[in-house]
Amino acid sequence: MEEIKITRAQTFKEKPDPSTLVFGKAMTDHMFIVDYDVGQGWHDPRIVPYGPLAIDPAAKVLHYAQEIFEGLKAYRTADGSIQLFRPLDNVRRMNDSAARMSLPQIPEDLALAGITELVKLEQEWVPSAKDTSLYIRPFMVGLDAALGVHSSHHCQYIVIVCPVGAYYPEGLDPVKIYVEDQDVRAVKGGTGMAKTGGNYAASLRAGDRAEANGYSQVLWLDGVHRKYIEEVGSMNVMFKIAGKILTPDLNGSVLPGITRRSCIQLLKDWGYEVEERRISAEELFEAAENGTLEEAWGTGTAAVVSPIGELAMGDKKVTVSNNQIGEITQRLYDALTDIQWGRAEDPHDWIMKLC
Amino acid sequence: MEEIKITRAQTFKEKPDPSTLVFGKAMTDHMFIVDYDVGQGWHDPRIVPYGPLAIDPAAKVLHYAQEIFEGLKAYRTADGSIQLFRPLDNVRRMNDSAARMSLPQIPEDLALAGITELVKLEQEWVPSAKDTSLYIRPFMVGLDAALGVHSSHHCQYIVIVCPVGAYYPEGLDPVKIYVEDQDVRAVKGGTGMAKTGGNYAASLRAGDRAEANGYSQVLWLDGVHRKYIEEVGSMNVMFKIAGKILTPDLNGSVLPGITRRSCIQLLKDWGYEVEERRISAEELFEAAENGTLEEAWGTGTAAVVSPIGELAMGDKKVTVSNNQIGEITQRLYDALTDIQWGRAEDPHDWIMKLC
Ligand SMILES: Cc1ncc(COP(=O)(O)O)c(C=O)c1O
Ligand SMILES: Cc1ncc(COP(=O)(O)O)c(C=O)c1O
Repeated sequence: MEEIKITRAQTFKEKPDPSTLVFGKAMTDHMFIVDYDVGQGWHDPRIVPYGPLAIDPAAKVLHYAQEIFEGLKAYRTADGSIQLFRPLDNVRRMNDSAARMSLPQIPEDLALAGITELVKLEQEWVPSAKDTSLYIRPFMVGLDAALGVHSSHHCQYIVIVCPVGAYYPEGLDPVKIYVEDQDVRAVKGGTGMAKTGGNYAASLRAGDRAEANGYSQVLWLDGVHRKYIEEVGSMNVMFKIAGKILTPDLNGSVLPGITRRSCIQLLKDWGYEVEERRISAEELFEAAENGTLEEAWGTGTAAVVSPIGELAMGDKKVTVSNNQIGEITQRLYDALTDIQWGRAEDPHDWIMKLC
Repeated sequence: MEEIKITRAQTFKEKPDPSTLVFGKAMTDHMFIVDYDVGQGWHDPRIVPYGPLAIDPAAKVLHYAQEIFEGLKAYRTADGSIQLFRPLDNVRRMNDSAARMSLPQIPEDLALAGITELVKLEQEWVPSAKDTSLYIRPFMVGLDAALGVHSSHHCQYIVIVCPVGAYYPEGLDPVKIYVEDQDVRAVKGGTGMAKTGGNYAASLRAGDRAEANGYSQVLWLDGVHRKYIEEVGSMNVMFKIAGKILTPDLNGSVLPGITRRSCIQLLKDWGYEVEERRISAEELFEAAENGTLEEAWGTGTAAVVSPIGELAMGDKKVTVSNNQIGEITQRLYDALTDIQWGRAEDPHDWIMKLC
């Protein structure tokens, strides 16, 4: 791998108080960039001062959304060291996204080095207050300045990072979720399994609408039957129904979440039966009404595990676990965060120590 | 409307020979920009030298594809004047796209002024060789530098323009189209009816694949049944079957093309029956096999009308009109281009004279 050239910032930003952080706004002093050109491959990896990108107004990313991204975190442990959680899974998922979006594959070591070297350089930015972390956003964009609808020959892979506060400053708190019955986010054959901009663009209107009505996120139904549960805004979703754990299967329109995968592993470790299968909204509401829906929660890097206290769809509204945190939800949250912040053993080799 | 402030370029590019132009690459010397901020509305309309935009690496458009665009042309007539074709239709469609993508509505006069004032300033760039024109690309992007999945409070509407050569330098030429049976571009409830980046990003892989196999574009099937014809890469599609004109109805996942709308009007003027309805690929291939598929063509701003000479799906392959240009296809092409280049009457008030 080519050596990463480092150009240090001349001025440094003040590090924000983690208790007042808005998610994803307080970018650090540097960013990682590497260029790709057809025929030349990936070249010129570099860390440079954080600042605006000079993008041609005709660049593909601005018109045809040739863009993919990832999201992971760096955690500071009690002894002051810094570690990542399953970073290679993110790199591999990015390459899966790239394949769908006609973007180039990036060598795993290069993509990972972009993350690790930037975090090491910005290590003072990794906060140490409880439940805070450094959010890492790798992304790849197609940059050809040409209006024809074609994949780009010139791309960049960029990593930016920002400290983020506790997702639940007052402790885990159940959220209200609206089952979206108008807009569709993704469909089989489309781009739902890829972490690509268009899926999120498609979700903004329903998200705004849900928020205006007092819900924190929407639960998406499949685009074909408009009946089967897919995932929440930026989380996969799991249910405990009649003692069994259920979660939608990875059918091609759902993002294969790394937190989801980790939760399934832990649940199996603990002896639970986990069924990955098609789950209709009807089944879910019926289970809520007949009392067999014991718990519901979302899983994702940002919130780790998010208890769902209320589910609404059209005029129907059901409360889950009496709007309390369910036992498994809490256990998963504790187990995962204990591993991530280095408070517990790491039996599955999920942790990569950095410095 | 606020006055448009003009900052002229210091150096000017050489104007390319229109016979060698690659579509969408030869941008002119200036661009139009206007800002939007929640609470303040649209402000500071300006024409500035064409050049890179300074975009924060955390901007929504780079991660969540909050972006929409339009495409239209300025035509130079025989007497040297310049005119647009149905520009208000583009402005209105952009506002429809904005509504779906949680972008702000832009006043029609402002959006239009961005187009007309830029074209007037760049009038020397409007080529005069046969079938050449100035392509106009208005687009709108969400620019908030924040990684939360929310709509932007700060946006820009930008117009860039470039001369484009004749789409068919050797005259109208039938194209080969592949009916895509793996990837899906759009689905009802999704964003198919909006001119937004994500739809095009979703289409790149299939487009690359079709091109590698010798096809010029793909014909998309609907995302629900994977059976019904929707549209071609960047064109709507029409068929003449047993004397009648058929075209897929605007069902929510198809872009409401302005060329489509214009063709339907002309066909009705000429006494043809036009049916806008669901058309299955099966029906189409059957019609080809039993000889009732008389013509097939695409409609879109870039190519105006594009005869389809071959249709393939899986192992099936059919020739349309003996791979010749059909009579109606040619008539539509001639009628539309005659109106666009001012060689014929404009009975429906489609033309807006500029200068
Ligand atoms: C749409 C969507 N689903 C699910 C997830 C959860 O994935 P992960 O657990 O890898 O963060 C995310 C990302 O955070 C997401 O954006
Ligand atoms: C997906 C798609 N369909 C159809 C069209 C045709 O629309 P119009 O006739 O307005 O150019 C376009 C744009 O050119 C397009 O991008």
